[in-house]
Amino acid sequence: MSTSDVMQIDGDRLWASLMDMAKIGATEKGGCRRLALTDEDRRGRDLFIEWCRAAGCGISIDQMGNIFARRPGRNPDAAAVVAGSHLDTQPTGGRFDGVYGVLTGLEVVRTLNDRGIETEHPVEVVCWTNEEGSRFAPPMVASGVFAGIYDLDFALSRSDADGKTLGEELQRIGYAGPETVGGRPLHAYFEAHIEQGPILVEDGQTIGIVTDAQGQRWYELVLTGKESHAGPTPMDRRRDALLGAARVIDMVNRVGREHGPNACSTVGMIDSYPNSRNVIPGRVFLTIDLRHPDNEVLSRLSRAVEEEVAHIAKAGSLEFALEEIFYFAPVPFDQTCVAAVRSGVKKLGYDAREMITGAGHDACFIAKAAPTSMVFIPCIGGLSHNEEEDIEPEWASAGANVMLQVIVEKAGRV
Amino acid sequence: MSTSDVMQIDGDRLWASLMDMAKIGATEKGGCRRLALTDEDRRGRDLFIEWCRAAGCGISIDQMGNIFARRPGRNPDAAAVVAGSHLDTQPTGGRFDGVYGVLTGLEVVRTLNDRGIETEHPVEVVCWTNEEGSRFAPPMVASGVFAGIYDLDFALSRSDADGKTLGEELQRIGYAGPETVGGRPLHAYFEAHIEQGPILVEDGQTIGIVTDAQGQRWYELVLTGKESHAGPTPMDRRRDALLGAARVIDMVNRVGREHGPNACSTVGMIDSYPNSRNVIPGRVFLTIDLRHPDNEVLSRLSRAVEEEVAHIAKAGSLEFALEEIFYFAPVPFDQTCVAAVRSGVKKLGYDAREMITGAGHDACFIAKAAPTSMVFIPCIGGLSHNEEEDIEPEWASAGANVMLQVIVEKAGRV
Repeated sequence: MSTSDVMQIDGDRLWASLMDMAKIGATEKGGCRRLALTDEDRRGRDLFIEWCRAAGCGISIDQMGNIFARRPGRNPDAAAVVAGSHLDTQPTGGRFDGVYGVLTGLEVVRTLNDRGIETEHPVEVVCWTNEEGSRFAPPMVASGVFAGIYDLDFALSRSDADGKTLGEELQRIGYAGPETVGGRPLHAYFEAHIEQGPILVEDGQTIGIVTDAQGQRWYELVLTGKESHAGPTPMDRRRDALLGAARVIDMVNRVGREHGPNACSTVGMIDSYPNSRNVIPGRVFLTIDLRHPDNEVLSRLSRAVEEEVAHIAKAGSLEFALEEIFYFAPVPFDQTCVAAVRSGVKKLGYDAREMITGAGHDACFIAKAAPTSMVFIPCIGGLSHNEEEDIEPEWASAGANVMLQVIVEKAGRV
Repeated sequence: MSTSDVMQIDGDRLWASLMDMAKIGATEKGGCRRLALTDEDRRGRDLFIEWCRAAGCGISIDQMGNIFARRPGRNPDAAAVVAGSHLDTQPTGGRFDGVYGVLTGLEVVRTLNDRGIETEHPVEVVCWTNEEGSRFAPPMVASGVFAGIYDLDFALSRSDADGKTLGEELQRIGYAGPETVGGRPLHAYFEAHIEQGPILVEDGQTIGIVTDAQGQRWYELVLTGKESHAGPTPMDRRRDALLGAARVIDMVNRVGREHGPNACSTVGMIDSYPNSRNVIPGRVFLTIDLRHPDNEVLSRLSRAVEEEVAHIAKAGSLEFALEEIFYFAPVPFDQTCVAAVRSGVKKLGYDAREMITGAGHDACFIAKAAPTSMVFIPCIGGLSHNEEEDIEPEWASAGANVMLQVIVEKAGRV
């Protein structure tokens, strides 16, 4: 069977929908500002529902504002095969992060309609509320409630910088639905997403078959030495907190490299006090972000960093306080779902690689409630969370074609 | 000759004057806030002049507001031997930084009066304007004009955060004197000061014989890499500006240590962008402060740092911009003045050491116009520029006793 025999989506239609959605909250620099539960988010949701209704879908909205657009299957009692992502963006976000996964799901439904294909299981397209967490922390809060990770009351009481709660804002924009969150069974969940990293684009591959989501451990470290004048304090009498911090930063990088290609270790934030040119820093705050898809290796990474921080502090006569502030267990995606993606890619003949998602996605939470996997496409320069975020139309089509194969396989063509 | 035979100052009187002056601008935490050319500075100057007049001195004030209190010598044509420092403080400063040097000069004059000692040269006590530079940058601006380093017009036009100029504020508090700045010849200049570092107090010595002032070279460095997401960006594809900065900080410290006990090298300030927990830093700004008393060694330090910054940037695939923003040449103090201090200390039998000043002082500028040296006393914990700055009364007396010997030697007892 040649690739041309494989059923494909309508790439022009998908791209046109992406561009139409990008008009809502469009920024001058070509990005999108569609923060969760703002009027722009409401307009995006309205347009999505309009398109879904035009495609013959029934709409359900749950108490977290998650929208499910359902294309019925032959068996009304079967659990749905669900595809989706989110429509909210970062404050200065791009046109594809999240949106791509939602509109890919819609394009699959449209293609099934075009071809009159019936499936055993219903097919649903989902839009999860507030994935970014930019307006209401934490991120992925609505898929988190769906998967039983967060309580509904906790989620609805999250507030933005102006003190408005997520629940109030859901009511205000008319998206506080009646359905119990997490009440609907999922036969399988697939999320198409831009990679948000450099691997596919640098290596010239079109599809990432996502097998795992990295586990994460986040730390905060405070190193305390002694503030003193840079002139009159000899080198051997200093307790320089910034020097200790520098050694920690270098060590965190080294430990990450030592734990193989799937380990990531980053110091992203540093604040030094008093931060004056001629004063030896007396106190430094920094953050450490450790990631690995294998929980055992992630633990080893953590222990290595904890031990080395203690050594560095002792060698520099510094006091230290190291606190783990966040832990997210690694998520191995469902093997049958991953196999479905692998098989779809093979049918289509795309250049692909298996990979791990380092970023968090709704799929990482939904994986705890249903068999789940993800499909990545490249983004230019690996750039995301940025108004310049961009993709090639052929990448968009390729990812949607993979999703089409996968959904038809899982939903069961009648 | 036993120590008790050596002429000594009145320690109680000196301490009482220090405590009286400390009331002007006293802070709740026991420090002083007497910023240059404020009403508090005016009151401090007024009190100083009142005391000097009571001690029989004539007062001259120059166009920079520098105050010279003169005890005549036998030879009215001889240049004066001058002792002093400054009365202005940091915003949350201590009771001794600067003040100690001014009131030590006064105590020497008072002691000469008590004992009816006549000198060949006049003895003068000087109070330099705006040494700290906290209100009007740069620091030491008035001694700088005196020594020909800064122009008068430049100095008078310096403005504070509210836009008030140094010249206007001198007029306002009544201290814009008539005398040409730098017009008076100095036979020798001595400045007593707290060390502002930990060496004397940690090593249990009472007097520092200051032989040199460190030269300084200050740099600003910007390292530029690529901002990217800490999750999806593998370690070997990163251009982490903070990792480069960490290696620079460690290298600057190492290079300082490699250049001997008198080298100081410090990164005091760091700002990282975007400074977010899960973003690899794309840009880091930091400052480098290099000091050494030998200009040749200081140059070697600079070259080593410049070369290593380039290597670190290259190894980390970073761009860099390194700019020298300040150079202050090392100041070797006058050998006869240093010898006079050494001889005074020996007479008194104090535990002393030769040392280098790492901080800037009016003496560092005056050394360019007249034979100069300094006398250090310890400060508790090496702490200065801090409301908790403190000294022991016996240290205050010891430093003043040394100054008494030195001034009598240089001024020539008749």
